[in-house]
Amino acid sequence: MISSNIADIHARRVLVLGGTGFLGTHLVDALVRSGSAVRVFERLAPPAATGASLSQRDVLVTTRDWHGVEMVRGDFVSGDGLAAALEDVDLVYHLVSTMVPSTSNLDPIADVQSNLVGSVRLLQLMQAAGVKRIVYVSSGGTVYGNPTVLPVPETHALNPLCSYGVVKVAVENYLHMYSELHGIVANVLRVSNPYGTHSQHIGVQGVIPTFFRKIADGTPLEIWGDGSVVRDYIHVSDVVTALLRAGAREQSATFNIGSGTGHSVNEILDVVQQQVGRKASVRYQPQRSFDVERIFLDITKAREELNWQPSLTLAAGCARYWEALSATQWAGHFGSDK
Amino acid sequence: MISSNIADIHARRVLVLGGTGFLGTHLVDALVRSGSAVRVFERLAPPAATGASLSQRDVLVTTRDWHGVEMVRGDFVSGDGLAAALEDVDLVYHLVSTMVPSTSNLDPIADVQSNLVGSVRLLQLMQAAGVKRIVYVSSGGTVYGNPTVLPVPETHALNPLCSYGVVKVAVENYLHMYSELHGIVANVLRVSNPYGTHSQHIGVQGVIPTFFRKIADGTPLEIWGDGSVVRDYIHVSDVVTALLRAGAREQSATFNIGSGTGHSVNEILDVVQQQVGRKASVRYQPQRSFDVERIFLDITKAREELNWQPSLTLAAGCARYWEALSATQWAGHFGSDK
Repeated sequence: MISSNIADIHARRVLVLGGTGFLGTHLVDALVRSGSAVRVFERLAPPAATGASLSQRDVLVTTRDWHGVEMVRGDFVSGDGLAAALEDVDLVYHLVSTMVPSTSNLDPIADVQSNLVGSVRLLQLMQAAGVKRIVYVSSGGTVYGNPTVLPVPETHALNPLCSYGVVKVAVENYLHMYSELHGIVANVLRVSNPYGTHSQHIGVQGVIPTFFRKIADGTPLEIWGDGSVVRDYIHVSDVVTALLRAGAREQSATFNIGSGTGHSVNEILDVVQQQVGRKASVRYQPQRSFDVERIFLDITKAREELNWQPSLTLAAGCARYWEALSATQWAGHFGSDK
Repeated sequence: MISSNIADIHARRVLVLGGTGFLGTHLVDALVRSGSAVRVFERLAPPAATGASLSQRDVLVTTRDWHGVEMVRGDFVSGDGLAAALEDVDLVYHLVSTMVPSTSNLDPIADVQSNLVGSVRLLQLMQAAGVKRIVYVSSGGTVYGNPTVLPVPETHALNPLCSYGVVKVAVENYLHMYSELHGIVANVLRVSNPYGTHSQHIGVQGVIPTFFRKIADGTPLEIWGDGSVVRDYIHVSDVVTALLRAGAREQSATFNIGSGTGHSVNEILDVVQQQVGRKASVRYQPQRSFDVERIFLDITKAREELNWQPSLTLAAGCARYWEALSATQWAGHFGSDK
């Protein structure tokens, strides 16, 4: 699955910011398998949004088979430890976000203070340290707002409806500016809604994992609106492939990374119910004003310039997810009837 | 010059943030003349960028014929005094910027901390106070970066090359978000390079006033690059007309406000030399990397939807500027040969 140009990453030192999060753990696994020297920048304090405690995070790290991964403790928001983490690094993956769309709108100033200021400081420190390459995970689901054309291409106007999206756009713009003025190679991946196994049941997990867990547990699940909201879902393994490809690039660019197709929340519900073999108990809640109604991404540019395309359909990805989940000890928590 | 729809502003209470700056003083003059109740939010501390002292600012205010203008002291960056300033206000003009493009790139974090955080806080306080209307002065010269098409329309991609522009785009996006989610009527004017008389010789004045002053003074002037850089210059009186029109709008929108034509720095030099009747002593300096090479604005949308167009050509505007300058006591500083 990993093409020849990924060999470029091999033997480099790669710093992963947000390496203990959902995408981060999968990315670090893949980097380690590819033979890269991997350093993970680990928050000193737990992120408020997930409620994870430091001990949980220690467990997370120590229970993974991450031989040779260097852990550097610090604080992305204040910048503490970041300069040390950047020493002798060739490539930075920036996957940190202290917010999700809903929390970002509750405190947009905190969103700016943590995610935007932290990202600008990272760029300044990269420039000072001579680190010339970064891959940033932006948000395909929020930067465009409500698209005027579907699937939405990268050239679509950026009209985000949540602070999370506004900050992602601002970080993208600073990356572009540092690329133009200071020669930093910055690749931005506007990822749609990734799903897949979480190492630890912490934080906000998105629709698919939440539906699987609640349907398997037999607990009611909530849908905001009538379930007609359309999103683009992509399996984490496909996102990781795109991240590796982006890390090997020599020029800056921005790519949509998604399935290229849209699915309504009700369709997701059907797929998950079929996999689990059980009906869900659904409570419909009022639609949230910052939720985009229909969006899925035009991935033509990633196909052509990143030589990437998703390998798993929604059904195949959900089947793989359910298989992995059922195989873990954690899945046993669902009860004896699974 | 002021059309009938400006009557809408009449008798409203208008808060002007940045009302003692260059655009602000001209806007406040016009609002007072139109009969509006005007409140000016005045910084407690002088802005670092201009080097103005508080006493200078006191002089500035007291020497103007601003009968009935209410001055409220506070701090835009910390938000001190802003809630009080917003009481019983119908319309806010947000003209505050603590940066210019060159200083913004020296300290982008300070740019974010002051201008972006301050603007988000303003929106939160407006929402809390029920203030439903705002006009924001954005930057026609920086938000687009180097345009791929000239004249550049509002729909052009936003690729700023300086922090000043990145922050303007982020503020625009928050305004758009508050407009969509909270019903605030937000009109954004992407103003090109305004010129005109400054009440006080403080701060960064732009190419035209600087050229006039230096040529009249007989002091050498600096040009960054070879003078081929093209910009869109607009007389302050035309900007004020656009600001008044925008304040009367009932719906949110974004408008380019400029002359619609481009002039090179060398052309500006010719015009100013002709007006003053004297040759300049020019020192050419290395071009700055964050300077956009050629830009002028497509003002079709402002013509059609704002019912606005510039009334002064560059030559007429410069003639008016020189006339005003020569008539003031300040012009006497140029020496006896003028």
